[in-house]
Amino acid sequence: MTSLLLSRRDLDFLLYEWLDVQSLTARPRYADHSRETFDAALELSEQVAERHFAPHNKRNDAEEPSFDGERVHMIPEVKQALAVFASTGLLGSAMDHEVGGAQLPAVVANACFAWFQAANPGTAAYPFLTAGNANLLLAHGSPEQIDTYVRPMVDGRFFGTMCLSEPQAGSSLADIRTRAEPRADGTYRLFGNKMWISGGEHELSENIVHLVLARIPGGPPGVKGLSLFVVPKVLVGADGALGERNDVVLAGLNHKMGFRGTTNTLLNFGEGVHRPGGEPGAVGHLVGEEHRGLAYMFHMMNEARIGVGLGATALGYTGYLHALEYARTRPQGRPVGAKDAASPQVPIIAHADVRRMLLAQKVYAEGALALVLYCGRLLDEERTAATPEDRARAHLLLDVLTPIAKSWPSQWCLEANSLAIQVHGGYGYTREYNVEQFYRDNRLNPIHEGTHGIHGLDLLGRKAVMDGGAGLRLLVETASATVDRAKAVGGDAAEYAARLDANLQRIVTVTGRLWATGDPETALANATAYLEAVGHTVVAWLWLEQLLAAEGSTSAFHDGKRHACRFFYRHELPRTEAQFQLLESLDRTALEMPDDAF
Amino acid sequence: MTSLLLSRRDLDFLLYEWLDVQSLTARPRYADHSRETFDAALELSEQVAERHFAPHNKRNDAEEPSFDGERVHMIPEVKQALAVFASTGLLGSAMDHEVGGAQLPAVVANACFAWFQAANPGTAAYPFLTAGNANLLLAHGSPEQIDTYVRPMVDGRFFGTMCLSEPQAGSSLADIRTRAEPRADGTYRLFGNKMWISGGEHELSENIVHLVLARIPGGPPGVKGLSLFVVPKVLVGADGALGERNDVVLAGLNHKMGFRGTTNTLLNFGEGVHRPGGEPGAVGHLVGEEHRGLAYMFHMMNEARIGVGLGATALGYTGYLHALEYARTRPQGRPVGAKDAASPQVPIIAHADVRRMLLAQKVYAEGALALVLYCGRLLDEERTAATPEDRARAHLLLDVLTPIAKSWPSQWCLEANSLAIQVHGGYGYTREYNVEQFYRDNRLNPIHEGTHGIHGLDLLGRKAVMDGGAGLRLLVETASATVDRAKAVGGDAAEYAARLDANLQRIVTVTGRLWATGDPETALANATAYLEAVGHTVVAWLWLEQLLAAEGSTSAFHDGKRHACRFFYRHELPRTEAQFQLLESLDRTALEMPDDAF
Repeated sequence: MTSLLLSRRDLDFLLYEWLDVQSLTARPRYADHSRETFDAALELSEQVAERHFAPHNKRNDAEEPSFDGERVHMIPEVKQALAVFASTGLLGSAMDHEVGGAQLPAVVANACFAWFQAANPGTAAYPFLTAGNANLLLAHGSPEQIDTYVRPMVDGRFFGTMCLSEPQAGSSLADIRTRAEPRADGTYRLFGNKMWISGGEHELSENIVHLVLARIPGGPPGVKGLSLFVVPKVLVGADGALGERNDVVLAGLNHKMGFRGTTNTLLNFGEGVHRPGGEPGAVGHLVGEEHRGLAYMFHMMNEARIGVGLGATALGYTGYLHALEYARTRPQGRPVGAKDAASPQVPIIAHADVRRMLLAQKVYAEGALALVLYCGRLLDEERTAATPEDRARAHLLLDVLTPIAKSWPSQWCLEANSLAIQVHGGYGYTREYNVEQFYRDNRLNPIHEGTHGIHGLDLLGRKAVMDGGAGLRLLVETASATVDRAKAVGGDAAEYAARLDANLQRIVTVTGRLWATGDPETALANATAYLEAVGHTVVAWLWLEQLLAAEGSTSAFHDGKRHACRFFYRHELPRTEAQFQLLESLDRTALEMPDDAF
Repeated sequence: MTSLLLSRRDLDFLLYEWLDVQSLTARPRYADHSRETFDAALELSEQVAERHFAPHNKRNDAEEPSFDGERVHMIPEVKQALAVFASTGLLGSAMDHEVGGAQLPAVVANACFAWFQAANPGTAAYPFLTAGNANLLLAHGSPEQIDTYVRPMVDGRFFGTMCLSEPQAGSSLADIRTRAEPRADGTYRLFGNKMWISGGEHELSENIVHLVLARIPGGPPGVKGLSLFVVPKVLVGADGALGERNDVVLAGLNHKMGFRGTTNTLLNFGEGVHRPGGEPGAVGHLVGEEHRGLAYMFHMMNEARIGVGLGATALGYTGYLHALEYARTRPQGRPVGAKDAASPQVPIIAHADVRRMLLAQKVYAEGALALVLYCGRLLDEERTAATPEDRARAHLLLDVLTPIAKSWPSQWCLEANSLAIQVHGGYGYTREYNVEQFYRDNRLNPIHEGTHGIHGLDLLGRKAVMDGGAGLRLLVETASATVDRAKAVGGDAAEYAARLDANLQRIVTVTGRLWATGDPETALANATAYLEAVGHTVVAWLWLEQLLAAEGSTSAFHDGKRHACRFFYRHELPRTEAQFQLLESLDRTALEMPDDAF
């Protein structure tokens, strides 16, 4: 039976026929690898996801974790699945050999992770947060911190979190209040409350490694005064032995609409429930230098943002495959114009509107997958490019694409899940089927790791203007190279290329016009429309890339790519015209609405 | 405290300042009424909804009805609320005096009902289905059926359902199999299974009156062979006394993503669990004539479709008011360009993107409310017009607007609920807040009472072409009269009028072009885009109507209407351009996608 999680055929197309991932094996970092080792990792991921993650996805939702005031309870399948996951070594798949990683390209590791996010995002969140945490410490932690915390994380014995938000500081990290008081021995004692901490408490691992943003007294206000600390749930001795309980205590679980399998917590630091070493406060260890915490955290946040895009994509993809299977097998109605009510019903895939909904899901899910894998490929480029210039270009392009890779899948793969419900009709609205959970789970993605609106501000207010607009220019230049190749091919490709080209030029002129106002408030008033217009243009570019990669191949699969590309250019890209016009008009309706007139 | 359910101020504006509902009291049917009686009904509805419906909305969701194999259990607040509702007489608010109704205008009754749908759609569904059922019997039932079933429904003793779908017949009613065998005494015996029956079983009322579509053996195939039957759960004697249990048995409850307070059932008719009169089969009584069942059922379905639009609107509206309150009170972040992290945070309503999301919710919710109330006003016109011509015009316009009144609120007030979550950030995703439930509840509305896609086919395939396109011409003509008035006013109104006028002409030419193909398959391939483009145009028209109604009034409330109208014309109406272009291109991408290429 074909998997309903992801399409391995499509992954192979994207990785090998389009992104030429096998060429990475010529680079020293990946020299131990080959298409065979890539395929083995993908196959292993699919198998473990199907056998150990997918089966308890619904139960993980229906019987969500609960807190009895002392302990968090969850269904046993979660711990069992994570033990299997740990045994595969996949957690460290993209990490260096020297810390026990498999040193796979990021693009391949991301493709591997997508299987788990499609199968069971609630359970998959624990190792993925752990990997992000470990990667931050690998980049910015001390050798001792790496030994003490990262190695047990790679082994699956410790899990990790990221602790940024507080009740009064969600999007506004400048308002973080948790304080970290230095002690004579070089450690710190933390006091404060952290909100929305995923995986903040559970009994799945021997320890939980919290990475916590806090203020050292006397530091500057705002984000410039934030420092980063490792705060383990259980203190770890120099020999790696677990010691005393640290003063990090679960205050409560949030009860979410979806994504219920992942505990989401309110944590108290240093409230006096425990007194490690007989002193008040949660013991913390400074990561890197004082007051540079946010910069370090962005290391994890940028990775997490691509991860959110990947997770949203995986849900959109599995929803599409579920809807497709349903549409092929559910008989209902007859073709337009068929008058004979005694004739047999046709499968609903025969109906134009169902086909439209399937194609829309296909372009959202496959387009989003292309986007997030492309970002993984850029990360590999950044890590292994032959020249500093190439490295800088990859870094810059990834930087400008990150808000889009987070937001576009979060928006459109959620829409895909809504369409998956719609294809199922009434059945799709019931919990007896799977698609309603995908929709509930996916609704988280436009919220966490920076809301949709925050990413609009990030793209237009920062990424589009940084370095004099170099990032945006690079994006346009890169996509324009695709335009040139497509024009040379001619036919449909050339037609789409012309449309893409027009959109790319439009981005340049619109960005210029917005910032020419000299008025950031007006420029940023419709930043979300900008994010969405640029996002659709980027995905149109990647659909054209896919069309070119399919050029000359005549299978049904490749025909599907051609039709999907056509669909994107006819049904989707034209949405951007209204957004560009709105931006060009420097519309201030939202700003000018009087507060008391809402 | 201001209500978070609906805005009474807005209802007053729509009813009295715009729709001139008080003028209806000059008509004989409504002669006993006055603005005072209208206001009293609205006030009573608000109070009962706030006090008896809203408080158990969350519990009704968290502790949904359950079936132990014999009985359906639900929280006691539901029955208590419905007893209060029955005592108000609101169920019969729009019905004739002679059956115990209050003979209120439909537009006022709908405004009353909206309070309950905003407060608790799960509980409100029982009386609203009952009202629809009663109205059908009033229109097509025999005097005896009205005495036996309608009067107890108006009194709140009996509840009603509509039983159309079957497991193999959802959108395709032609495939209904339930059979009704005539008996010598003039009754029928029914055998079959009905699926998705809302309110199909519960212990909230003394009896449940099912209206069931079934086939009398020997009749024509397809929808032309459907007849309609009254099938009570408990047989009712000639004296109105309850008798034997009929053979209508609950086979199971569907477990839904939302709308959980309303039992949704699979019902077995005539499976032999009971044998009324010692014979097999569920006892049914024919309504009207044989084989005309679908036409009668459309009476209830059309009413139910407006009801779905109203319910979707109410959820969008209450979500908006919740988001607005949150935005006014939640401090987070600082204005664009504010550098001082030590300055206090501002309420999030100060941020442009939050304002945009609030305005979008406002135009969706208030635009949808204008649409569904306009439809109620048309029903009143149809019932009380002075001339047969006026009556026919009202009927025709209502007919063409019905698919839009059902679909537009279902689509855009769901989007409003998504934005309400987004305004709340992480809090909105938790069940500790209200908005996630609104979103889950509202997701049902694009599915039931004809899916979104079905209404596209209804509008483009039937309503736009019936009577040689008379309905569509009337719609365009009616909206064009608004265009003329707005042009005369000048200023913004004239600018919007020009845009609306262009859209209206576009609808005419696009419709012509689609049908000029002579190829229904191609014409209908993008019927959903047609539905959505016409829907946005219709709501733009009603926003222009609201602008004109606010003309000369200078309160903050009226300013809000002006800004909202501007927002709709700048941010929303331009979406239709891409849809019109797609339709004009006679795009066949979805049709031409090979089945094996998905």
